[in-house]
Parts: sequence; C-alpha cells; structure tokens
Amino acid sequence: MANPAGHDTLREVDLDRFFRPETVAVIGASDTPGRPTTLNWGRIRAWAERAGARVYPVNPNKETVDGIPSLPSVLDVPDELDLAVILVADAMGALEQVIAKKARFAVLFAAGFSESGQEGEERQRRLEELLATGGVRLLGPNTNLNAFESFRDDLPGRPIALITQSGHQGRPVFQGQEIGIRFSHWAPTGNEADLESADFIRYFADRPGTGAIAAYIEGFKDGRTFQLAADHAARRGVPIVAVKVGRTDVGRSWAKSHTGHLTGADAVVSAVMRQYGVTRVDGLDELLDTAAMLARSAPPRGDGVCVYSISGGTSAHMADLLTAAGLRLPELTPDTQVALREWIPGYLRINNPVDNGGHPTGDWRGRRILDTIVADPNVDVLVVPITGAFPPMSDKLVDDLIAVAATTDKPVCVVWGSPAGTEPAYRDALLGSSLPVFRTFGNCVTAVRAFFEYHAFARRYRSGWGGSMDLGTSPGAGAARALLVPGAVLPEHRSKELLSAYGIRTSRDILCTSATEAVAAASSLGYPVVLKVAGAELPHKTDLGLVQVGVGSGREVREVYARMVERAAAATSTPIDGVLVCEQVSGGVETVVGIATDELFGPTVMFGIGGVSVEVYRDVTFRVPPFDRDEALRMVREVRGLPLLLGSRGRPAADLDAVVDVVMRVQQLARDLSGELAELDINPLVALPDGAVALDALATAR
Amino acid sequence: MANPAGHDTLREVDLDRFFRPETVAVIGASDTPGRPTTLNWGRIRAWAERAGARVYPVNPNKETVDGIPSLPSVLDVPDELDLAVILVADAMGALEQVIAKKARFAVLFAAGFSESGQEGEERQRRLEELLATGGVRLLGPNTNLNAFESFRDDLPGRPIALITQSGHQGRPVFQGQEIGIRFSHWAPTGNEADLESADFIRYFADRPGTGAIAAYIEGFKDGRTFQLAADHAARRGVPIVAVKVGRTDVGRSWAKSHTGHLTGADAVVSAVMRQYGVTRVDGLDELLDTAAMLARSAPPRGDGVCVYSISGGTSAHMADLLTAAGLRLPELTPDTQVALREWIPGYLRINNPVDNGGHPTGDWRGRRILDTIVADPNVDVLVVPITGAFPPMSDKLVDDLIAVAATTDKPVCVVWGSPAGTEPAYRDALLGSSLPVFRTFGNCVTAVRAFFEYHAFARRYRSGWGGSMDLGTSPGAGAARALLVPGAVLPEHRSKELLSAYGIRTSRDILCTSATEAVAAASSLGYPVVLKVAGAELPHKTDLGLVQVGVGSGREVREVYARMVERAAAATSTPIDGVLVCEQVSGGVETVVGIATDELFGPTVMFGIGGVSVEVYRDVTFRVPPFDRDEALRMVREVRGLPLLLGSRGRPAADLDAVVDVVMRVQQLARDLSGELAELDINPLVALPDGAVALDALATAR
Repeated sequence: MANPAGHDTLREVDLDRFFRPETVAVIGASDTPGRPTTLNWGRIRAWAERAGARVYPVNPNKETVDGIPSLPSVLDVPDELDLAVILVADAMGALEQVIAKKARFAVLFAAGFSESGQEGEERQRRLEELLATGGVRLLGPNTNLNAFESFRDDLPGRPIALITQSGHQGRPVFQGQEIGIRFSHWAPTGNEADLESADFIRYFADRPGTGAIAAYIEGFKDGRTFQLAADHAARRGVPIVAVKVGRTDVGRSWAKSHTGHLTGADAVVSAVMRQYGVTRVDGLDELLDTAAMLARSAPPRGDGVCVYSISGGTSAHMADLLTAAGLRLPELTPDTQVALREWIPGYLRINNPVDNGGHPTGDWRGRRILDTIVADPNVDVLVVPITGAFPPMSDKLVDDLIAVAATTDKPVCVVWGSPAGTEPAYRDALLGSSLPVFRTFGNCVTAVRAFFEYHAFARRYRSGWGGSMDLGTSPGAGAARALLVPGAVLPEHRSKELLSAYGIRTSRDILCTSATEAVAAASSLGYPVVLKVAGAELPHKTDLGLVQVGVGSGREVREVYARMVERAAAATSTPIDGVLVCEQVSGGVETVVGIATDELFGPTVMFGIGGVSVEVYRDVTFRVPPFDRDEALRMVREVRGLPLLLGSRGRPAADLDAVVDVVMRVQQLARDLSGELAELDINPLVALPDGAVALDALATAR
Repeated sequence: MANPAGHDTLREVDLDRFFRPETVAVIGASDTPGRPTTLNWGRIRAWAERAGARVYPVNPNKETVDGIPSLPSVLDVPDELDLAVILVADAMGALEQVIAKKARFAVLFAAGFSESGQEGEERQRRLEELLATGGVRLLGPNTNLNAFESFRDDLPGRPIALITQSGHQGRPVFQGQEIGIRFSHWAPTGNEADLESADFIRYFADRPGTGAIAAYIEGFKDGRTFQLAADHAARRGVPIVAVKVGRTDVGRSWAKSHTGHLTGADAVVSAVMRQYGVTRVDGLDELLDTAAMLARSAPPRGDGVCVYSISGGTSAHMADLLTAAGLRLPELTPDTQVALREWIPGYLRINNPVDNGGHPTGDWRGRRILDTIVADPNVDVLVVPITGAFPPMSDKLVDDLIAVAATTDKPVCVVWGSPAGTEPAYRDALLGSSLPVFRTFGNCVTAVRAFFEYHAFARRYRSGWGGSMDLGTSPGAGAARALLVPGAVLPEHRSKELLSAYGIRTSRDILCTSATEAVAAASSLGYPVVLKVAGAELPHKTDLGLVQVGVGSGREVREVYARMVERAAAATSTPIDGVLVCEQVSGGVETVVGIATDELFGPTVMFGIGGVSVEVYRDVTFRVPPFDRDEALRMVREVRGLPLLLGSRGRPAADLDAVVDVVMRVQQLARDLSGELAELDINPLVALPDGAVALDALATAR
C-alpha cells in the first residue's frame, strides 16, 4: 500500500537469540544477601544455565559473584554477546557500553521512564536516541523477569505464546501452566522503547507449532505495526486473543499513565481487531480460556455445536446461552437420532441438545453415545457441561470424554461447574488432558464463538498489505488536494467538489449569490428544489432554519432566499458564500460515510445509518485502510440498521453495491490525502434503490 | 389492587415443619442392597435423625428396614405426620393415603409428569386434582433429595437460601459451601404441582437472618405469584438473585419441556425482575458470587467504589471494567490523598484507583493504607484485585484485608486471579473469611453493580400491592368496554375513542364518508390536515398510500379523498368506514405506548421511541402493573432515546410529565380491561413541548 504517512512493512527481529541466548551478561550482578539484584541475578543465571548459555556477571566492585569471576565491564565479556541484562541504576551508562560491545539484545528493568510523568518521558526520549546509535535491540525499560520463566514441557497440545505489558497482569494467564495449559514464551514488553508487541507477535507467529498468541495490551506503541503484525499472524494462520484496556476514559487515562502509550479510540481498536481476526476479550480468565481453546483445537469444517448433558436443565441453560451468543445448534441427523434412541429413553430430547437423563453416563452406553455424536456430520464442536460433580457419573463421563476426544479432531469442550475445583476428575483427569476445559458456561460460550469466528475469518482472509490492495493514487487526488486549505473547514459545496474528484455522486447543486440566480438555478434543476445557506462555519444548519426543502416555485425561491440571508446574518458574523440551490432527492435510506483521524491508526473510514441511528444509537462501524471490497461490504452489512437497507414493509432495497462503492472511494481518498485531510463527513449519503447520492458533506483539512 | 383477572395476595405456607419435621415417613423405604430407594431412604433417615425427627419406614413387604420396624401403610404411623416422602412408583396411591393421614407435607420424587409430554401432563393434572381434595402440601413431582442436604453451620456471614428447578443445575451453587459460602436451605421445586418458587421465596424472606435468595428458574408456574413473592422479599429487604433460562427460543423450548412451565417473553421477565429489584444473571457462577456478595454485605451509604492494587496495570484494567459497567470511582478526599502519600511514592497515582507499586504491601504500611482508604467518606466499596499471586506480598495483603474488613461495614471485595486456586492465601485465608471473594474481574464487577443497584432499589421501593396503588376503576371503563367486540381489531377512530374514555389526548379527527364532508371537516380543523383511510384491517397504511399528510386546500382534500378510496378498494375487499380527516400535529418526538398480554404476567405496559427506534433498535421497555408514577417515569427515562425527549441541538424538551401521565392512564386501562383487551398500540404518541397527543392507535379485543 502506498500510504505516504506510514511504513507498510514490519521489521523482522530474529528473537531466537533473545529467548535462547548462548551468552548472557548480567550488569550489576550481586551476591550480597538481601539485595534485589542478588535475587534477579540468581534467577537469570539459573534460567540461562538451564538453557545452556554461558553467564557472565558484570560488577566492578566484586572479584567474584557466586564464585564466578566478575567482569569489571560488559566490554570485558570474552565472547560475542547475545543478551545483556541491565540491573544497575545507571541504565544509560550501562547501555552505552552494551552498544559498544555490539550485544544483540539488552533488557532494561529500571522504571521511571515514559510511564512516570514528563521527566520520565524525557529520559525515555534520550534512551531512544541512544538506541538509535547502535544495533542493540532492547526490551524495556520498566519490564521484569517474565521472559526468563520456566516453561513446562510436559503439557499437551500446541502452546500459547504470551505478550503482556504488565507482569502482574500476565501472571494469572501464565499460571495457566498450573492447570495444564502449555506456554512457549512470555514477552513482558514494558515501555517498548524498542522491542514492541508487534515484534513478538511476528516472531511467535513464525515459530512452527505456536497454537495461539495471547496478549494483554494497555496501549500501542504504534497502530501501524500492530496492524502489520496482526496481518502477519493472520497470514500464518496463528490466532491472537487480546485484552485491550481502554473501554472507558478512566481506563484509557490509567493505561496511558502506566505505559506512556496512546490507547486509541476504543471503537477503532475493536474495529482493527475484528478486521485482522483478533479476538478481543475483557477478562484475563477469558484470555486464558479462549487462547487455550484456539491453541488446542483443529479448524472446524462447519459451525455446528452439539450440547450433551445428563440433565434437561443443564441442556436448556447451555443451549440458551450458546444461541444467545449467535451460535448454531443444528438438528442431529436422523441416523444419529435413531442410534441414540437405543441408549436413551424416549421421553428425553436428543435432537440437540442431547439429554441422556443421567443413567447411561455410568455404564457402557456413555461411550457409545459420545462416539455417535462426534461422528455426526452436523457436529463440529461438542460442548459438555458437567454442572453437578457426582463422582459415580462424572468420573466415568470425564474418562469417556477424554477417550473420545482422542479419536476425533472435533473439539470436545467440557465445563466443570463445581466452584471448588478440587475434585480428582477435574484436577487429575481433565486438567491432565488436552481438552478445552472451562469453569463457567460463559467462558465456554466466549471461547467456542471465538473459535468459529476466527476460523471463518482465517478462511476468507486476504492481506491488504504488500501492494495487493494498492489502487495507486486516484487521478482526482491533485484536484482534491488543491481544495484543502490547511486547518480550515471546507464549506459544503467545496467538500462536494472533493467527493466529485473521487467520482462520488453528489446532488446537483448550484451556488447562487442573488435571488435571481437562484430562480434560474431552480428552473434548470427542476422543482421542487432545496435551498441551503453556503459557506461560513455553521454546523446544524437545519436547526438554524438555513435549509429549506421542497421549495416549489420561483416566488418561493425568492422568499426563502431573502429569509435565509437574513437568518444567516443573525446567526454569524462571517459573510456567507451565497445560497446553494440543490436538486431535491427523495426516498432512499440516509446513511453516513466519513473519515476520522485516529491518534493511533490514522485515517479511519466510518459507515453508519443516518439520523437518530447515528446520533442516538451510535449505529456506526469503522475500518482502517487498507481493506478490500468484500471487507467494505461486511462493514456495511454489520450495522444494526441493515434491515432498513435491505428494504422492509414494501420499501425497496437500497443499492448496497453503490454504497460499498462510495466506501471504497472514500477509503481511496483517505489514503491519498492522509497527510492533508483531518476529517470528512458525508451526512447524509442517501442510499437509493439505484445508486447513492451525497446530499451534504463537510471536509476538514489538517 | 383490584384486578379482576388475578389474585393479589400470596398464600403463606409455614415451611418450618417441612424443613425441620418432628416426624418423617418414608414410603417405599428399603434396605435391599443396590436399590435406589435404599440409597434414598438412608439419606433421608440420616438427615431426619440429625434434625432430631422420628423416622418411620413404610413398606408392606418388609418386617424391618435397617432394623427399624416397617409399617404396612402410612396410615399406621402412630404420630401426627409432618413429612411423607414418597419413593414408590405408584405415586397416586401413596399420595391418597398421605392425604388420608392428613400429613402436613409430602415430597414426590417420581418423574414422568408435566415435564414428559402429553401423557405426563395428564398425569400431573390428575395429581393436582387429587391434591385439591386434601390439605397436604406437596413438593414435586420430578424433584430430588436436595432439600435434605447437610448445611454447614461453621461458615461466616448471613446465609443464602437456594431455590432451583433442577437439582443438577443447583449443585454448583450449593457447592459454594465448599468455598466457604453459607447456605441455610435448598428447595428443589421440580414440577411445582403444588409448592412453587413463590412459596419458598416468601418463607425464606420471612426467616430472620436470610442474607439473600438465589434462584435458578426455567419457567414460572404463575407470573402473578412470582411478582407477589418478589414484592414480599423487597418489602422485607431480602435481595433475590436469579438465573432465568429463556433468552432464546431454543432455551425457552427446552426449559418448557424440562419443567412443563411457561417461560414468558424474555424482555417482560427482565422487566418484572427489574421492577422488583431481582438481580438477573446468566451464569451459575455469577448467581453464587452475586448472592454471596449481597448476603455478606451491609447496605452502603453511597455508590463510590475504590480500587486498590499493587500494579498500575491491574488498577487500569479493573477501573476500566468497573466504569464500563456504569459504576462510579470517586476521587479520594484530599485528606486521604495526603495521608496515602506518606506511604506511597509520588510517581504512583493514588486518587482512585490507588496503585501502591507493590512494596508497601509487604510491610507495616500495607495495613495503614487500607485503614486510610476504608475511612474515606467517598468510599463505599473497596475492590482489591490480586491478579498475580506472589506469596511474600499477597499473603500479607490478604491478612491485612481480612483484618481491615473486620473494622468496617464497607464491603472489601477481593479478586483472586490465579486460575489454580490452590494457594493457601486463597484456600485457607480468603475462603475462611467473610469477605466477598471472586475469581474473575467480571464476576466482581457484576456483583458490585448488583449490590449498589439492589440497595438503591430497596431505598426507593414502595409496594404496589395490597391496595396502595389501587386507583379504583376509571369512570371511563364502561364506555371503553362497550367499544370492544370480542376477538376483533378496533379501527383507529374507535381505538381513539377508547383512549379518550381514559382521558388520553388524541388528534382531533372527523370521520367522513364523502369528499364534501371531508372538505367541511378540514375547514373546521384548519389546514393543513391529514387524511387517512378509516376502518378495514390494514396495517402499515402509510406504506400503502392510505395516509396523506400536509393536505393544504379543499381541492387537495377532494383529490386525495378520491385517490384513497380507490387505493383502499385495490388493497382490501373489506369495505372501509370512510376517511378520517385529522388535525395535523407537527414537531415533537414520536413515542409508542402500548399494552401486550404476556402469557405469564398478563397485561404489560410498553413504552418506547417511535420510528426506527422501535422498529430497528427495539428501544422499548416494559412494566407489569401495578406500578406508580415514579416507576413510570423511570420507565420513560430508561430508553436509550431519552436524549431525544430531553431536547438536543436546539430542539425543545418534550413534556415528560404528560408522557408519564399517558403511561399511567394506559396502565389503568390495562388493569380495568384486562379481561377484554388483548393489545393496544398507540403509535405514535407525539410528545410535544407541552402535552402529548396520540396520532394513531389500534386496540385488539380478546
């Protein structure tokens, strides 16, 4: 994509040597009891030695540290240096030496940078300048030891790679290991002076076998690199699940002060995540459970869920929550139902959910029922809520579930309802298995939905980067650019010229500066016409009586013209440009299409339904370029007001193709003019049965 | 309330002797190894003996059961009988004898009644007939042993009383005992042939010390008794938390087949719960956590939440989720902030959330900080997320939290983030305490929100039963009733007469049967007028061109009249009543007010914003009578389109008082005519700056 405002490729950082260094220097290593550096040195040394690396303590005040000869400076390390860990307070001095040593990677623990006010921001700026002088890649500052944790290699399934901006917040996710969930890496990115989430996403997506990437994000260093990294993961087929703090102003303010990063407009963050197939969740528990589901499960063929339970109540409740989340519970095939009737009494419902009433669970029938259900072609995921733990039944059920899961690629999801979680069937059997296991119905529903949505996304995804969606610069770009006056709001008629330069149809309007001109214009357009005051920064012209529709005759034109000029003079001291006489377009559905500049993601395209739909119900949706026509159509189709566009109660359907076309042209405009245009608001764009017409528009230059 | 359709008092069943019987007979008791009745007899006997009751096995085929002489019939029990437990297959025969014995209570376990198809429904009908012949109160059929569980009396805090329609679904809630949550009762209501949820709600609400009632509901036996029971609990100040299955058609269909009960329109169920302060949740985990929070916590003075954490990330995340849920995080007082600064470094934010950065947690400062926060008058609930379990800090923090909680009435909520939950600080310390403890941010937010909402409700609640909101029958009721033709749809002009009978202002309309009449009518109303075809069952008249607004002259009236009559003839074979010539009302906000008859709750009043707001965004809300003017105002104020009513962009505010007045009159109408009226739809009711006018209405008789 040729976007003058940003880079369009993601750097590739080979983090192998970071995660598996051959040589490690610890600057500030100490063996003086009770010091934090002593503790950290001990942990890093143990981790590095487990990984087979040579470890060098660096401390000019020590002869030896824990019996290892201490080096006066990192420059004295006798090897090429893969990783320098900086524990000393004088971070800058140490980093200068690390750069001189040409180490591959450095980690800087110290806090007090961009997360801590203006002075800290200045320190971080100097740090970034220093980094720019050399080739060392830095993790931190304001990070911790989480990259140097122990990763259990005895756990089943594909592992999760974890990225967190806060060690404390990452802990309960990483502790997933304690309930049997496998992790391969943990990147605690801290303030991201250099290495950022995007670098780790790319690296993890490139590791063969990564099952999923789980991320806890407070702010982004760079919206663009996040898009590129998410695109990379999408192309590699590696799902990302993320918590992103910043639903509210309070959250955004705190997240910003904690990491020094921008947080982005929340709706735009969600839109970008949707666009790149990133599953956004709110809780750390959901992050762990959903990532585990995605990591452990092969792609489905369809989207059918079957619920199996020993209780009709449990069946009803689970089916209710799944369908309320938009998931599909198909009827089981007639063959399956005939087979199930051999083992389940006739008064129980088995079409889906399957309610076995309890008894068959405890004997040989339990396994036969499960085999039959997973063999049904309509079933893609089996969900088994074990609400009440009752060992004679639930132990056998768990054994059967684990055995059946080994025979199929279809995910077998189990909800263990007991709040205690101390039962052997849970702790020993289920947590030792590779099944997706949940503690609540809610988290199971969230994960199953994410699973289907991710794989539907993965099947359809086409990257918009690397030129594949490059439309070149529009021939109209030059003319459009010439219209923009830096910092100024373009009046309606000029804004419409901008649209025309991009081939977007507008109402036929004629700017008039006298009543006589207006009458002539109206005759040429044909009655009735619309009159609007042109120019001056007057928002909400309709409310000020500066717009009149249905003007039906020359006499009326003269009357309205005079009244409007008078009203405009009362409303503003700025001279007006005149009065626009406009073709009156009736019928159709009012939509809005626009461009906003997001602090993180830059030019962002908006689509919504006009009037109260956007004003009161916020029925709008966003996409960040680049995106293709199919994505633009998905955008248009995802507003809640879609039924209005599809036609209802005898009203004709709107021309969705024409609307999509406008969205694509607006995207082109956003990309071409990202340096010059701050905002564009087409409101309304009337979607007619045949075509779409911009009736009003307002562009604001940067 | 004088509602001819329903009872307005709740029966009072003294369930003391059910839960603490002095004599228990077990019909079908057995000691033959391996039989289910043997198991059940053993459990009931153990439970009854623990409670100090005399237990009689009844079995004509045994001399003794477990060494106790067996009685041939329940009639042979030598005492007055408090509780007869029926384990035999011939439930009807046994029940006849129990009735003859004049036992106080009976429990019937057998399934195969209304939950199992038509034949079962017929059996249940016969069962209910049999019950009507005697004085015994029956629990079941299709129930289980859950009423006879062991209740731990060593747990802290006020207990939860549990009601579930499914034993399996109730189990994980009751297992709350295993994580330290106290329960006093468990009522497994089954098919509710006699005793129903409402009876237990009333009884539990009347028990001194009941902290909360937790209910798992699939369907209601009777909407009215549920309202009355919820009202009773509201007056007693006992909160109810409920899962109600039936969000979707799938859920409703399953719930119905599981219990044989009606499930109600889901939006109406939610409305009734809101009206009576019942907290509705979706998950069993939320049910347990929210009920425990309510049971363990004293009423708050205000609505301020403070978040305290050892991490800025955790603070940001928790604050974000709380504020997104509508909760308020006030600034701590200047005094508090000055005090906190003594212990917390200056670069950390302490205004709320309070981020201590970690270190103060581990020493004497930790307790001082907590004391200072809970003493702040702006703080009503303290939320402490312990995301990462790190024993040197988190163990001390937990100890401090438990100690501080003992000094204050303010709830101290702790989130223990570790997914393992095997840590001693959690299992031993927190679970042994009386603090509300959560495993996820999400459940904590849900519970804290429910806590504030419940107590705000409790403070304002005024019961509408027992005559307090009885308005008598309207003087217009007779005239209104006379308009209704059984089973018929009332045409617009008749429907408006119905409204007029209740003092609801409608547009001035004149029914005309000739163009000449129409012209005269228009002159008398004043131009412009609206013309509408009157009569015939023609929905969506506007779409058919049978409504014309802005008719401005006598000539136009004649033209439009002729066109409409022609179009009506094309659209329907039913003769029309004529053409309505109506006053044209401009400006204002279109709202809708209506009455629907819910299968469970009967006449239900609806309010919403008109146009796309109701059609596309379902911006409507419900109340079930009786409710007072304040509740009607809350109803009007809870629609999302409220800003439209409050005025915006220079538009005047609507007369909310007039709208509330219409809602109250419609309620009166719904109550007076509940036997005759099926539906009423006022669409639109235009809310003007001064008054509210019904422009269209459609009533449907039963």
